[in-house]
Amino acid sequence: MKASGEDGKAPAGGPWEECFEAAVQLALRAGQIIRKALSEEKRVSTKTSAADLVTETDHVVEALILQELQTRFPSHRFIAEEAAAAGAKCVLTPSPTWIVDPIDGTCNFVHRFPTVAVSIGFAVNQELEFGVIYHCTEERLYTGRRGQGAFCNGQRLRVSGETDLSKALVLTEIGPRRDPATLKLFLSNMERLLHAGAHGVRVIGSSTLALCHLAAGTADAYYQFGLHCWDLAAATVIIREAGGIVMDTSGGPLDLMSCRVVAAGTREMAVLIAQALQTINYGRDDER
Amino acid sequence: MKASGEDGKAPAGGPWEECFEAAVQLALRAGQIIRKALSEEKRVSTKTSAADLVTETDHVVEALILQELQTRFPSHRFIAEEAAAAGAKCVLTPSPTWIVDPIDGTCNFVHRFPTVAVSIGFAVNQELEFGVIYHCTEERLYTGRRGQGAFCNGQRLRVSGETDLSKALVLTEIGPRRDPATLKLFLSNMERLLHAGAHGVRVIGSSTLALCHLAAGTADAYYQFGLHCWDLAAATVIIREAGGIVMDTSGGPLDLMSCRVVAAGTREMAVLIAQALQTINYGRDDER
Repeated sequence: MKASGEDGKAPAGGPWEECFEAAVQLALRAGQIIRKALSEEKRVSTKTSAADLVTETDHVVEALILQELQTRFPSHRFIAEEAAAAGAKCVLTPSPTWIVDPIDGTCNFVHRFPTVAVSIGFAVNQELEFGVIYHCTEERLYTGRRGQGAFCNGQRLRVSGETDLSKALVLTEIGPRRDPATLKLFLSNMERLLHAGAHGVRVIGSSTLALCHLAAGTADAYYQFGLHCWDLAAATVIIREAGGIVMDTSGGPLDLMSCRVVAAGTREMAVLIAQALQTINYGRDDER
Repeated sequence: MKASGEDGKAPAGGPWEECFEAAVQLALRAGQIIRKALSEEKRVSTKTSAADLVTETDHVVEALILQELQTRFPSHRFIAEEAAAAGAKCVLTPSPTWIVDPIDGTCNFVHRFPTVAVSIGFAVNQELEFGVIYHCTEERLYTGRRGQGAFCNGQRLRVSGETDLSKALVLTEIGPRRDPATLKLFLSNMERLLHAGAHGVRVIGSSTLALCHLAAGTADAYYQFGLHCWDLAAATVIIREAGGIVMDTSGGPLDLMSCRVVAAGTREMAVLIAQALQTINYGRDDER
């Protein structure tokens, strides 16, 4: 077994080494497909709708990842965005389980806005073991393995140590529901943080990559209502291994299936954000 | 004189060639300084405040750009963010005038959030001749020259042809004022666009780079109240040369000093955005 990465290099080894390596290779291959689709979209978009196009690439990428993993690890279980949309249940059992978002930042992808990622998380005994996130256009590979640190392209990640909300850069996402009542709550939460003096609020269109900014210390906090377990799973390991906090918006422990999250570099900051927020109820991933 | 760039390559020539080349070289040199400062910030931030640090780099970069240009073009005039903050008047006369933002995305810079740009615009007879914007961390150089097209790292830029607000990705920025009344208007404008069914609203923390997304066709519209002429000047040429529209939020012609803007790939989209917005009055750059 190698060391835990204290030397700044990504460590190797551990019980799920083969799975981790498979995730890295698949994220890179998926990223290639997504980059190609992004460069071709302009030509295609006159013939077909943006929604068709994204569905096609989403399906292609998810099929690539799931087929490969199912072949190599036939006893494992899978939770994935497109499968869930088609009616598959999202239940996290103690079995080794892959949690996959083939394209995070779907709206960005449709518009070729270059903030799009592949996210692959892996849990055993309902505990997250590793996460792999690939920023397709910037070619940044974020990885985190339980007890072994978090890295971006081999560079160790560390969260921000900020505890003062009035010095914070906060990230969030609008969420999928756009009815007037939900929008009012979304905007009211943003208003509360800006009133509290947060330096700024950013909305980049990818929960996964926003969470990677948090892990890298280039933002101090993140919150969202309406994200899914496949947006959260991989990023949660990466943030925790970078020294950060991922919790429920109630201030309690993270519930991967609860469709809501607060993450921050410090517990103090996470609690301040959680206290400032009004809840938007999106239901649960495991009760659909 | 070379052709107007229809072959997809950035064209050379034109009456302000020497000025344009100087702007490109200075933007690249400034970008190096900013990248270095971003990589050092973590070490420095324990000794000095984030505000000190950013002021220092802002001043270093602006001094580099202005001193070089003043030496080479002693008869030209200058409008620049730090000089304006120190009390210099922002008046656009018919003289050749450089309009410089040494670091656009100051809050991002403080947090090392990697969306930071140098912006250099150039006007003669009160008409914008060229714009050079350098995305420091992604090393993307955006250029636009009147009548000669717009380019990013040599690739021709074209705006989106979208005319339907319900299919649009819209970018905006929060603006510098955070009093309750201004925040209410900012959030109300975002609400109006989301109610109108915009696919999404993004806030990336750099007006200049948001406008570059518009030029590249990776977003359909941009609006903001509270930005300055140095945020707008270079980007305006780039967007227009990529086929886009830059106008006042009233729907009338752009006024570079009015601290407000709507930009879009099509006139239809720009008008729809302008009609949806409530005005936030930030005063004028030339009346401070």
